[in-house]
Amino acid sequence: MATKRIAVLTSGGDAQGMNAAVRAVVRTALDKGADVYAIYEGYQGLVEGGARIRKMDWDSVGGILQQGGTLIGTARSEEFRTREGRRTAALNLLQLGVDRLVVIGGDGSLTGADVFRREWSSLLSELTQSGEISAETAAEHPHLLIVGMVGSIDNDFSGTEITIGTDSALHRITAAVDAITSTAASHQRTFIVKVMGRNCGYLALYGALATGADWVLIPEAPPDVDNWQDVMLERLRAGTKAGRRDHIVIMAEGAQDRYGSYIGSSDVQRVLEEGLGEEVRTTVLGHVQRGGRPSAYDRNLATLLGYEAVIAILEAKPEDDPILVGTKANRIIRLPLMECVQKTRQVAEAINAKDYEKAMALRSSGFKDAFSTLKTMIRALPHPPEPGQRRFRIAVFNAGAPAPGMNTAGRVAIRLGLDQGHIMLGVSNGFEGLAEGQIKELEWTSVSGWASLGGSMLG
Amino acid sequence: MATKRIAVLTSGGDAQGMNAAVRAVVRTALDKGADVYAIYEGYQGLVEGGARIRKMDWDSVGGILQQGGTLIGTARSEEFRTREGRRTAALNLLQLGVDRLVVIGGDGSLTGADVFRREWSSLLSELTQSGEISAETAAEHPHLLIVGMVGSIDNDFSGTEITIGTDSALHRITAAVDAITSTAASHQRTFIVKVMGRNCGYLALYGALATGADWVLIPEAPPDVDNWQDVMLERLRAGTKAGRRDHIVIMAEGAQDRYGSYIGSSDVQRVLEEGLGEEVRTTVLGHVQRGGRPSAYDRNLATLLGYEAVIAILEAKPEDDPILVGTKANRIIRLPLMECVQKTRQVAEAINAKDYEKAMALRSSGFKDAFSTLKTMIRALPHPPEPGQRRFRIAVFNAGAPAPGMNTAGRVAIRLGLDQGHIMLGVSNGFEGLAEGQIKELEWTSVSGWASLGGSMLG
Amino acid sequence: MATKRIAVLTSGGDAQGMNAAVRAVVRTALDKGADVYAIYEGYQGLVEGGARIRKMDWDSVGGILQQGGTLIGTARSEEFRTREGRRTAALNLLQLGVDRLVVIGGDGSLTGADVFRREWSSLLSELTQSGEISAETAAEHPHLLIVGMVGSIDNDFSGTEITIGTDSALHRITAAVDAITSTAASHQRTFIVKVMGRNCGYLALYGALATGADWVLIPEAPPDVDNWQDVMLERLRAGTKAGRRDHIVIMAEGAQDRYGSYIGSSDVQRVLEEGLGEEVRTTVLGHVQRGGRPSAYDRNLATLLGYEAVIAILEAKPEDDPILVGTKANRIIRLPLMECVQKTRQVAEAINAKDYEKAMALRSSGFKDAFSTLKTMIRALPHPPEPGQRRFRIAVFNAGAPAPGMNTAGRVAIRLGLDQGHIMLGVSNGFEGLAEGQIKELEWTSVSGWASLGGSMLG
Amino acid sequence: MATKRIAVLTSGGDAQGMNAAVRAVVRTALDKGADVYAIYEGYQGLVEGGARIRKMDWDSVGGILQQGGTLIGTARSEEFRTREGRRTAALNLLQLGVDRLVVIGGDGSLTGADVFRREWSSLLSELTQSGEISAETAAEHPHLLIVGMVGSIDNDFSGTEITIGTDSALHRITAAVDAITSTAASHQRTFIVKVMGRNCGYLALYGALATGADWVLIPEAPPDVDNWQDVMLERLRAGTKAGRRDHIVIMAEGAQDRYGSYIGSSDVQRVLEEGLGEEVRTTVLGHVQRGGRPSAYDRNLATLLGYEAVIAILEAKPEDDPILVGTKANRIIRLPLMECVQKTRQVAEAINAKDYEKAMALRSSGFKDAFSTLKTMIRALPHPPEPGQRRFRIAVFNAGAPAPGMNTAGRVAIRLGLDQGHIMLGVSNGFEGLAEGQIKELEWTSVSGWASLGGSMLG
Repeated sequence: MATKRIAVLTSGGDAQGMNAAVRAVVRTALDKGADVYAIYEGYQGLVEGGARIRKMDWDSVGGILQQGGTLIGTARSEEFRTREGRRTAALNLLQLGVDRLVVIGGDGSLTGADVFRREWSSLLSELTQSGEISAETAAEHPHLLIVGMVGSIDNDFSGTEITIGTDSALHRITAAVDAITSTAASHQRTFIVKVMGRNCGYLALYGALATGADWVLIPEAPPDVDNWQDVMLERLRAGTKAGRRDHIVIMAEGAQDRYGSYIGSSDVQRVLEEGLGEEVRTTVLGHVQRGGRPSAYDRNLATLLGYEAVIAILEAKPEDDPILVGTKANRIIRLPLMECVQKTRQVAEAINAKDYEKAMALRSSGFKDAFSTLKTMIRALPHPPEPGQRRFRIAVFNAGAPAPGMNTAGRVAIRLGLDQGHIMLGVSNGFEGLAEGQIKELEWTSVSGWASLGGSMLG
Repeated sequence: MATKRIAVLTSGGDAQGMNAAVRAVVRTALDKGADVYAIYEGYQGLVEGGARIRKMDWDSVGGILQQGGTLIGTARSEEFRTREGRRTAALNLLQLGVDRLVVIGGDGSLTGADVFRREWSSLLSELTQSGEISAETAAEHPHLLIVGMVGSIDNDFSGTEITIGTDSALHRITAAVDAITSTAASHQRTFIVKVMGRNCGYLALYGALATGADWVLIPEAPPDVDNWQDVMLERLRAGTKAGRRDHIVIMAEGAQDRYGSYIGSSDVQRVLEEGLGEEVRTTVLGHVQRGGRPSAYDRNLATLLGYEAVIAILEAKPEDDPILVGTKANRIIRLPLMECVQKTRQVAEAINAKDYEKAMALRSSGFKDAFSTLKTMIRALPHPPEPGQRRFRIAVFNAGAPAPGMNTAGRVAIRLGLDQGHIMLGVSNGFEGLAEGQIKELEWTSVSGWASLGGSMLG
Repeated sequence: MATKRIAVLTSGGDAQGMNAAVRAVVRTALDKGADVYAIYEGYQGLVEGGARIRKMDWDSVGGILQQGGTLIGTARSEEFRTREGRRTAALNLLQLGVDRLVVIGGDGSLTGADVFRREWSSLLSELTQSGEISAETAAEHPHLLIVGMVGSIDNDFSGTEITIGTDSALHRITAAVDAITSTAASHQRTFIVKVMGRNCGYLALYGALATGADWVLIPEAPPDVDNWQDVMLERLRAGTKAGRRDHIVIMAEGAQDRYGSYIGSSDVQRVLEEGLGEEVRTTVLGHVQRGGRPSAYDRNLATLLGYEAVIAILEAKPEDDPILVGTKANRIIRLPLMECVQKTRQVAEAINAKDYEKAMALRSSGFKDAFSTLKTMIRALPHPPEPGQRRFRIAVFNAGAPAPGMNTAGRVAIRLGLDQGHIMLGVSNGFEGLAEGQIKELEWTSVSGWASLGGSMLG
Repeated sequence: MATKRIAVLTSGGDAQGMNAAVRAVVRTALDKGADVYAIYEGYQGLVEGGARIRKMDWDSVGGILQQGGTLIGTARSEEFRTREGRRTAALNLLQLGVDRLVVIGGDGSLTGADVFRREWSSLLSELTQSGEISAETAAEHPHLLIVGMVGSIDNDFSGTEITIGTDSALHRITAAVDAITSTAASHQRTFIVKVMGRNCGYLALYGALATGADWVLIPEAPPDVDNWQDVMLERLRAGTKAGRRDHIVIMAEGAQDRYGSYIGSSDVQRVLEEGLGEEVRTTVLGHVQRGGRPSAYDRNLATLLGYEAVIAILEAKPEDDPILVGTKANRIIRLPLMECVQKTRQVAEAINAKDYEKAMALRSSGFKDAFSTLKTMIRALPHPPEPGQRRFRIAVFNAGAPAPGMNTAGRVAIRLGLDQGHIMLGVSNGFEGLAEGQIKELEWTSVSGWASLGGSMLG
């Protein structure tokens, strides 16, 4: 049996932990008796070949585990986007006898790998016909096997619970907001902090939860009311009343309102300055989130994924679809790569289509729990029982037969109640249920998705 | 319906994130319309009462999310270990109308809460008879409801995947070992780093994985050979040969050999100094692991758990057993508290009984995967094919009927082979399986547990 | 002898270490037998009085040493800018018997204190006449004694070598640029990092030195050539040629060209993108620089200054001018406050007047050394001996009698030579000096100031 | 003129910033037209030669500025301690035409360089006679020129104000004690933290100042009383009474009592446990202090020193004594190396001889100020006016002619008074001075050194 030959590359935006992943791929491959090559500068290096593709030994990846970024580089490659470029890339791999490729990157990078894989046999034909490779070589490597891992600080990839770099980015955000908080408290001032995430509010949401922020704007769940500015201002004023000296609003890059209109940090700043009658400062964290030493979590995640990627690629069968190595239920698992890519794109499409219910539905339950908990932390403010106002426990139930629009109506009623500080109770099975005590308290997210469903969710 | 009254306390060793948990309990309780009290100085404060039990409002927990330790304090309480002490504690709670208690602490602290809960009705009787409380008061609070959360940097609690403080401790270990690594490399020296964990090697194992350590000693999985010192030395020498300038050995406090003998850092130091013929340094990380700002992960974990703890305690029924709020499959869930305590103790007992197979079996599959991956990372060293040595692919299979001892023999053979750098293959169904290709590669952990099982695991 | 009463306030932008200063003032005052008050929210609190001015005891400042920002707050006060406001402020102090004020703030805040001090006796008269204070009270506090300390992360204050907060800000800049560097290297990309400093390039300069940046733009020393863009590009290209993967340009907020035109980060970005033909990213560090835990250095500096401030204010005589407590030659010293303020303004004026020679002359010699060293680090690139080019040792000397313009000509010649990579030698005393070997190598800064001087600096 | 050739090595314990120093030496040398070599593994590499001595170019030191430890290594060399070893070292240098050596290390390493320098010409003779080098080579390199820089985290070198690595070590100590403080406060517990420094209390003193520690033990200034244990306990109890929850005692490795007896951390622990009746924990920070990324300060210090070292070694004349490049009054200066070594040893000798007055006298005034300020911060505790006790202002003056022992008596009186919380005043010129008001308050350190001086220091 010929020695298996694996190549590994990093592509797309760099993420903390990519080096740990490369190290694990190299060392696991060596341990399993395979040869392993690193491709420098991403797909561009794959096209350029030569010194860009280097055989690795144990020591080649020594001392890289702790370092940020990706030491084998990443670069945009226009050439790899062309068939001509991919043809050269295939030739470069075949000359080294490599037909297994581990790709660490984001959405686009992994899709690129799949295109390459699907074209492989036709590229082989071309290269054989032109005499650039021999028929024997073609016969030895009839298939390109692909395993992917997601390196992305945004955690914007569906299917896997967490992507390499997310935890480290969250760390840096938390440290930055901690620092800003002390300044904000010194001046009794409000700060807006903008974090990464075009289609994914993960960093904004978990950053807000970790720093006790007062308001958050994420693409998947825009404020559910038209006058969100008023609600936001009211919460901030309530905080001040309760003794809070600083206010922090965290927003994702892709923040938008319920009509899909982009919300910029300057928009929020203007609203806050006018509403609070004070200076408001904005900090765009930018690339500070991306770099620096990976956290322990990211190093371990990337190492475990890198290990599994090699096991998977060595076990892969020619007929197998490309695999994504990710995590689910806190375990390292293998997933169908292209399905995950599809699902990832669905989130972006749902956001573009302003179908936020769907976008949230596509997020993990952990994400939804976090969002719900954050809302409670913010809402916990003793604002609602304004002078003279009472806080009610309001039960909602449907009477009569299910009818179109019932859910939508229920959903609106429940959210309105929650927003005004009441405790909302759902009663199942109408009057009968009420009699039997089929009552449970409803949360903001309990009613997510109701808008698009028929029948009566309350029952 | 009377307003529900909840008290929260922290107990045992402090852990980063405890403040976040307290904050979440307070704010969630307020949001749900409950009254909430903080008990200062743990169970000791519960016994002392008075100013030690304070009603909290929204602002009481402002600005604590980011802070290390526990701001409501923790203390040993001899008094609470006596029935007399618990009687006073019950009285203190009853005087405030509190009959729901959220406890954030370790194994012992949570067990103490359960004892208190079970005694509650007899304490009530005593207090009523003595006239310290009225019959009405007793009638209003017939049961004490308990919800626990684990605050422990060691991650030494079964049932929940991760405990509050673990991620932060791992951070501090990682930063410390990163720092030590640069010194070790400067001097081409070996360092021993001792981390916390008497019965749990989590910090040592994940710390080793995150820092690329060369050897790890954990209580659950002592080296499987008698001459582990030689094996360790061989790995370190192989590293040197491959170009590595530093060597790091990480050991848990509870490190031991396969016969249950304690391994101290000075033992390891002596072995290394004699074996390598050079000075070796030891660093005991101690309390540096415990304090400091909680990581983003711990803040979020503690916030989500604190939220769920309040939901759980408000929904709890008198007849319910005490609940532990923890994580499983990356979700926040409710677990039977005392079952988890039992399971936690089983690990300690298994280690004491030198039944390491069982101890490892009680750990999560993630733990086992991490251990296996770490071994590969260490083993990946190009040591085995020593001059003249070849690396074989060795297949192991059973022929004939299953017989006692077959598994043990197979296990020994497989580990021996792996340890010598060979690739071990398992063949199912004897010769028949071999003919049909029922072969798969075996890992170190593939054979865990075989020793205690009957039949033939290979099949 | 009546107990002396001291008040302390923080004003202006917050800086890490302000809390350490307040703590030292309070504890030293208590130790010296004085009463001490903290004024909350800066001058605004001084005007508002009441709960804004609180008597401090030992415990009041416990646990604040490590914290960022200023826990006694700082705020803009329009009222204190009016005589009416200051009248109320004086009344507030007199009612408590306080006539000694320690102010921790920047340029403007300290000037405000001096205005208040000079008006004190006329304010006394007014308050006595209106009957708001008694003649006895007026007689007991005929003078307001002022001691200032500079809290400012920019190190933009003349007279003292370093201001409270500078070291911590430099830390945060360094950590941020370290993080960005790993990303920049991953992508072989150029980053622009904008740091604080309107009239002072300290953070930019020392940040560039600490992170190995490739180019720096500071207000005091704009590029000395018109085509600085070309020179910058050439250096960056030389770095790439020498193997460098990342490029970092650090610029102060107040960056400008030699004609005083503001240079924005977008200007630099455009130049770099056009010149290098690649994407360039900009990060504005903003308030991340300002907050967070003070460094050990800032805590110690602030503690030592706070101690000395109390000693100084207790020893102060009515006729004394206000004192600034600062550092010189690494010692804690007392300086004439208003002279330092004047000097600080002269730098700003010199920059506004485009008299950069003067601006640099007003900076400390350490600043100039750092600038010179940074230039060498950047210049050290093996760029100059371009193919076919030789690196000369060029001697410059004046022959004949000194004449106007000689220095300017010499300066231009020398810098041009240095810029092209030659080694420039200065010969003293013309041909005679040459014969006698009165030759020394000239640095970039050796010729600073020549432009505005008569005679021949070379001699 | 032949190109000058410089070699640079690091020796002794590694210190953060050594890489920055090496980088600055290399790049400055290149910029000045010199050739530059790095010697790997310290003096051992100098003896081994070959691949241990490598020519450096600009890129050789790229990316090392930010890294901890020393990338060119450091090692103990028994061989270099022998003349035979130094003979080989000389040969290695001569074969490359190197006769200028920059050494970055501690006390012993710099002394070693001086021995080598003094032997140089006799080594030359030997090598010429044996024919290992030609007469021409010998003639071209008649002298070895040495410039040293101190790399030492302890700041234990006299002559220079601060050594490379000290600021970074202080950072790590501060971060560790901050972390421990939160744990200590959680448990209301006392912690002992042991930091580096055998003959120098710098890290302990400035670490204590930066973290608000309650007590410090440094070698240069042992407690001035026999019952220091009681005094320490009293201060800690006073802190508890004033509301403090945690207690931190920081001790240097070289801590001793006034009789020169070693004080171990276990001694202090026993005293505290018995005296306070509670558990006390000890943390030995160890190598955690030494490693990790250098602080901005250390990077800049090392860069400026490295630059100056090259300028100095290029300007050095054969007859010059070896130079130390260090800082004084916050400026980079050149110092006579061996004088500084002598002075450094005097401190150690004074400590060994229990002449603590002298040891302190040899420390910088900044050190003494810091010590005095720390004592005030600790003493500030409202302990002295114990129930019924009054705090006096006590004046001390001499009457009659100066007599032997007057100073000693005065010193004892003054310290006793201060220790009991009184304010001590010194009167100059006896009764006459008293009449004229020649009175000033005396500090603890005001009387340092009096014991060994004749006459009357008070006057």
